[in-house]
Amino acid sequence: MGMIGGSLDGFIGSVHRMAAALDGTIELVCGAFSSNAKRSIETGNALDLPEDRIYVSFEEMIAKEAQLPADLRMQFVSIVTPNHLHAQPAALALKHGFHVLCEKPLAFSFEEAKKIGEHVKRTGLLFGVTHTYTGYPMVKEAKDLIAKGKLGKIRKVIVEYPQGWLSDPIENDGQKQASWRTNPAQAGISCCVGDIGTHAENLVEYITDLKITELSADVSSVVAGRTLDDDANVLLRFNNGAKGILIASQIANGEENELKIRVYGEHGGLKWLQSEPNTLIVKQNDQPTQLRRAGANHSYLSEHARLHCRIPAGHPEGYIEAMANLYRNFAASIHAFENKTSSNPLLDYPTIEDGIRGMQFIETVIASGKENAAWKQL
Amino acid sequence: MGMIGGSLDGFIGSVHRMAAALDGTIELVCGAFSSNAKRSIETGNALDLPEDRIYVSFEEMIAKEAQLPADLRMQFVSIVTPNHLHAQPAALALKHGFHVLCEKPLAFSFEEAKKIGEHVKRTGLLFGVTHTYTGYPMVKEAKDLIAKGKLGKIRKVIVEYPQGWLSDPIENDGQKQASWRTNPAQAGISCCVGDIGTHAENLVEYITDLKITELSADVSSVVAGRTLDDDANVLLRFNNGAKGILIASQIANGEENELKIRVYGEHGGLKWLQSEPNTLIVKQNDQPTQLRRAGANHSYLSEHARLHCRIPAGHPEGYIEAMANLYRNFAASIHAFENKTSSNPLLDYPTIEDGIRGMQFIETVIASGKENAAWKQL
Amino acid sequence: MGMIGGSLDGFIGSVHRMAAALDGTIELVCGAFSSNAKRSIETGNALDLPEDRIYVSFEEMIAKEAQLPADLRMQFVSIVTPNHLHAQPAALALKHGFHVLCEKPLAFSFEEAKKIGEHVKRTGLLFGVTHTYTGYPMVKEAKDLIAKGKLGKIRKVIVEYPQGWLSDPIENDGQKQASWRTNPAQAGISCCVGDIGTHAENLVEYITDLKITELSADVSSVVAGRTLDDDANVLLRFNNGAKGILIASQIANGEENELKIRVYGEHGGLKWLQSEPNTLIVKQNDQPTQLRRAGANHSYLSEHARLHCRIPAGHPEGYIEAMANLYRNFAASIHAFENKTSSNPLLDYPTIEDGIRGMQFIETVIASGKENAAWKQL
Amino acid sequence: MGMIGGSLDGFIGSVHRMAAALDGTIELVCGAFSSNAKRSIETGNALDLPEDRIYVSFEEMIAKEAQLPADLRMQFVSIVTPNHLHAQPAALALKHGFHVLCEKPLAFSFEEAKKIGEHVKRTGLLFGVTHTYTGYPMVKEAKDLIAKGKLGKIRKVIVEYPQGWLSDPIENDGQKQASWRTNPAQAGISCCVGDIGTHAENLVEYITDLKITELSADVSSVVAGRTLDDDANVLLRFNNGAKGILIASQIANGEENELKIRVYGEHGGLKWLQSEPNTLIVKQNDQPTQLRRAGANHSYLSEHARLHCRIPAGHPEGYIEAMANLYRNFAASIHAFENKTSSNPLLDYPTIEDGIRGMQFIETVIASGKENAAWKQL
Repeated sequence: MGMIGGSLDGFIGSVHRMAAALDGTIELVCGAFSSNAKRSIETGNALDLPEDRIYVSFEEMIAKEAQLPADLRMQFVSIVTPNHLHAQPAALALKHGFHVLCEKPLAFSFEEAKKIGEHVKRTGLLFGVTHTYTGYPMVKEAKDLIAKGKLGKIRKVIVEYPQGWLSDPIENDGQKQASWRTNPAQAGISCCVGDIGTHAENLVEYITDLKITELSADVSSVVAGRTLDDDANVLLRFNNGAKGILIASQIANGEENELKIRVYGEHGGLKWLQSEPNTLIVKQNDQPTQLRRAGANHSYLSEHARLHCRIPAGHPEGYIEAMANLYRNFAASIHAFENKTSSNPLLDYPTIEDGIRGMQFIETVIASGKENAAWKQL
Repeated sequence: MGMIGGSLDGFIGSVHRMAAALDGTIELVCGAFSSNAKRSIETGNALDLPEDRIYVSFEEMIAKEAQLPADLRMQFVSIVTPNHLHAQPAALALKHGFHVLCEKPLAFSFEEAKKIGEHVKRTGLLFGVTHTYTGYPMVKEAKDLIAKGKLGKIRKVIVEYPQGWLSDPIENDGQKQASWRTNPAQAGISCCVGDIGTHAENLVEYITDLKITELSADVSSVVAGRTLDDDANVLLRFNNGAKGILIASQIANGEENELKIRVYGEHGGLKWLQSEPNTLIVKQNDQPTQLRRAGANHSYLSEHARLHCRIPAGHPEGYIEAMANLYRNFAASIHAFENKTSSNPLLDYPTIEDGIRGMQFIETVIASGKENAAWKQL
Repeated sequence: MGMIGGSLDGFIGSVHRMAAALDGTIELVCGAFSSNAKRSIETGNALDLPEDRIYVSFEEMIAKEAQLPADLRMQFVSIVTPNHLHAQPAALALKHGFHVLCEKPLAFSFEEAKKIGEHVKRTGLLFGVTHTYTGYPMVKEAKDLIAKGKLGKIRKVIVEYPQGWLSDPIENDGQKQASWRTNPAQAGISCCVGDIGTHAENLVEYITDLKITELSADVSSVVAGRTLDDDANVLLRFNNGAKGILIASQIANGEENELKIRVYGEHGGLKWLQSEPNTLIVKQNDQPTQLRRAGANHSYLSEHARLHCRIPAGHPEGYIEAMANLYRNFAASIHAFENKTSSNPLLDYPTIEDGIRGMQFIETVIASGKENAAWKQL
Repeated sequence: MGMIGGSLDGFIGSVHRMAAALDGTIELVCGAFSSNAKRSIETGNALDLPEDRIYVSFEEMIAKEAQLPADLRMQFVSIVTPNHLHAQPAALALKHGFHVLCEKPLAFSFEEAKKIGEHVKRTGLLFGVTHTYTGYPMVKEAKDLIAKGKLGKIRKVIVEYPQGWLSDPIENDGQKQASWRTNPAQAGISCCVGDIGTHAENLVEYITDLKITELSADVSSVVAGRTLDDDANVLLRFNNGAKGILIASQIANGEENELKIRVYGEHGGLKWLQSEPNTLIVKQNDQPTQLRRAGANHSYLSEHARLHCRIPAGHPEGYIEAMANLYRNFAASIHAFENKTSSNPLLDYPTIEDGIRGMQFIETVIASGKENAAWKQL
């Protein structure tokens, strides 16, 4: 693979590289790691890439790689730049025949996202979006339990993603992540909803296989002087009549990444927390609560879950492993694509549709917020 | 004290009696335990009350007790009947000079609640409402931390009370609690919001000392055939500009009483769960999380918290103890009232204002729900 | 009941009084609360006892109560004095026809304990020992699961009771509890093993229905200047061949009362923690972990467990309720005894045999400790 | 690096390969993955190794790699074979100038371990042992807190490693791991103590910087027909006078890898669990409990801990990351060795001394067990 963005001075690039490397099936062969040529080269050198595969712009990388023999050139690009720098490289990569795995949110705007979608459709190439949390094995287990009807018809969902890291205006102190995420020119119309609200939205639609059809969002910029949102409380309604709540916050002082989902159906409920990702809690009125635990050797787990565990139960797997599952599955799909076979549908990953959906969600939430939490359809 | 309602075939009466008995300062001297005379007498007998202090109606009880010498008659009444049977006995008791401790929600309607309030004002007597959860020591600790400014200005609150017990239409099977709570003639305009939503509202206003000024509520009757609500998702706005979420549900299948509150301020956040009541979690960005633990011997706790612990740390106290704190504090206030002294203000209990506020909350939520979650002020 | 010991300046008396009062079936009618007459009278007054039922010595109390008409006099005595003051009042009470409920450890020595046992045998009266932890509903559930063979043959047990309160020599600062517990003249040959080791021993034999047949104990006085033990690590062997570990410590700095038991059998394991008493964790290889939860309404629980819950699930019950279960069951046994009927065997409580067994355990552990952890039989 | 052992049909090889690959600084260049030539070649092919770097025996690998130019040949070998196949390849590799990273326990016997130690000494090369658990960041934090005296003098340690996977005689069903671990010809004199007891021993000595000087071990073969131990309860004494307990079990039915350590000192205690590795619990009498959380961005953590976190707090890291820390640190040491510089001492890893110590521990425990838990020095 080739990487766009992800220089050494950020953290996201290195996470992607670790995730891609974990299973030994993906090799980083080139990169345009920064729009700053010096920084790109430094990064490439640090990663022991050959000089001629370190590029100083994504345009250069895509153009030159496309000229390499098929067995030498990168097979796909991984885009880990800020939001406003997704669409152009994605479009160019697709145009030159490269599959794309792109950070979320997919694009700068819903409009832009739909255009990427058209490129994908036109080229017939593969496109993945790194909604990492759906890569956790117990998220797969949750999806499987619901799909099999173990909870009955879903009635209520509570999904939340509280963080505290933007409780203070750290963007003014030059913290890199904070700077671009709170900057409309780089992040688009949303900070909090775009960064973590979309994760919550993606997780809930993935696990339940329901669609949010309507929402009412109370959106805030809590920290003085901040242009974009840093907090949102959202009422949800789903296509099967279920209702829900989505909470996203970057000013929940003291919270790390407390992504949590609870789903209640006619026959039971389930709970999953990202901070304790190897356990899925399943509840039912007047029954003992069940803790289902990740582990490649747990025969009681669904095949979907077990396929996403690397090691036997009792050896905790974490965030990098979850992202590695996305990389592995994307690579498996590319392999199948190239060989004109089909890959195991359980080796799934978030697709261009998920990415577009996320952008639609962001725009709808922000629109509702601007109208005092008016109901908006999506 | 004398009890109105609380016959042996329910559960709430016995909880109140245990709570009142726990500290050895309150004696049950009489009761009108049921409108069914036979049942009232059976209950009184089972409780070893003298025959002449077992009454077959609250009217009889209040009238006859009022005629007893001051040192013999009951000092206050505890009302534990369904919602529609609060106002009449409360008014009559006050009129005859008895203090009143009343189950929540205070009344059948906001209108009725305000009338009780007028009776209280007119008589100058004491009136408590059993919002039991504010009796927990670590709730006191949370209130104290916020009052002392440890979290800074409050910005966001998440309060939730998910239960699963009404996931099925058990009211049709004659389950007593379910029958009256889902019956508008007995419960009033709300089931879920009235029963548990008010607890959440009371808890959040108690801990933060903020007022909800506006809300938008998505209210549902999820179970087919149910007239009243069994689920509500509510957006909150507070008088200091903070925002929040309140979730109340009786169809969260598998949940017991997962009352939980999280409060986030400029400088930190806190979390308290009723199911693990002896721990208060305090978080702050880039600081170790603190677990503050109940215990009469914990010198690091506030005086407010320690006054509500009975035993040293490590001996868990629970729901009955929390309710006993309300009874003890109410009795202490009566004692001070009778002796024209003042009781320790830290020995607090929910008052008539809390009760009226709760009814206002219910009416506002239901009104918002009927208008598709329109914003309503309160 | 009448109480011996338990003046207001300690904490244990008030816990017993709360536990006895909780269910409304036991009335405190008299007491000799201290060998200090003034303190006894102050305590009795504070408890609103009539002057003539407040005694200044247990001898006086037993003698005078015995002369009262049967329907007026106390039915049993509750002894809550330090260890060295159990045997005499117990023997005297039995001699005068009173049943006895006694704090643990039963006596000053194994020898003394056996003598109390002979008195009990001779009189045929009831004798309970307040090993409070066996009163928790989920301890009953654990016992029931094992009795029903759900874990198969028991193979290994780990029971531990770490506390931190004696990490410093607080006995030198006049802390009352610490003073007598570390004083051989009042506590006997052991501090830590006598106070909490016996709880662990009682819990493990109660839950498993096994007997410890042999042990090897490494016993320490960690804090400089302390005569008695404050820490013990014990290897256990059981009559069915199972092995185990028992840990008791009062110098586990930072721990409250982390009493915990784990039992492993051929087919599964279970875990119970006193600090989270309403949950019983049941595990089995390659099965989801089960959390069984206390609650009078949980039909999946054993009758034994449900009989020891007062309220529906979700309302935590704690230590006082556990002790109240002992009082209630003891009172039910007395009732049956007086009426020559039999009480429900599930309404059980620790008996004289448990008390004697505890003293044997203490002596055996201390003896092993003195011989560098030599194996000792019991 | 080159790998010895670790064919595709086991699980440990792939864990090591993932751990080595994670940080992008170690490349697998060759391997002798099995003594079965066909299996070794299949594995090498699956890993995309060039044909001429896939060897059919470790002797062939070491000999041929040694003949390659220095910049092409492997720099170190990773040995992941069963216990009886550690010493020979280790000695041969050292003899040919290769550093060695070896699975634990180090060898088949203490005797053999000491001989490896002599080879290491003679060659002056680097030798690491994969006691993976010391690679967790919060284990580093625990070590740091104790080293800085935050707990004061250590008084008591409880370390335990309960597993349930050998509750049934699965070695008879051909389960590969179980087969060799329970077979004296492959595992040596111990199964349970050798496999997991040594982890516990290593962890406790690493965190506390104390040495076990004496132990008394009750060792069992619980499952019928099993030759080696599957359970051990061990009393410990340390060189500073502290005492402790070590529990290792493979028949704790239902447990995964519940490695847990608790350390108590004069001024406080700490607790760490492998199943929730990103939290370190620090307790102190009459102080709120502290939860210290892993995260590269947590400035309150020690440098030692932060150097072993890859990503900001809230993204759980797990077992593979812990092992990857060992690989990364070992590689950093090799880099420093080759460049004749010194690497950061905080980038530490278990050394040959730890490996020898582990073997001594195993022999001592088994010897004590054979003499009915007689005290043995080490």
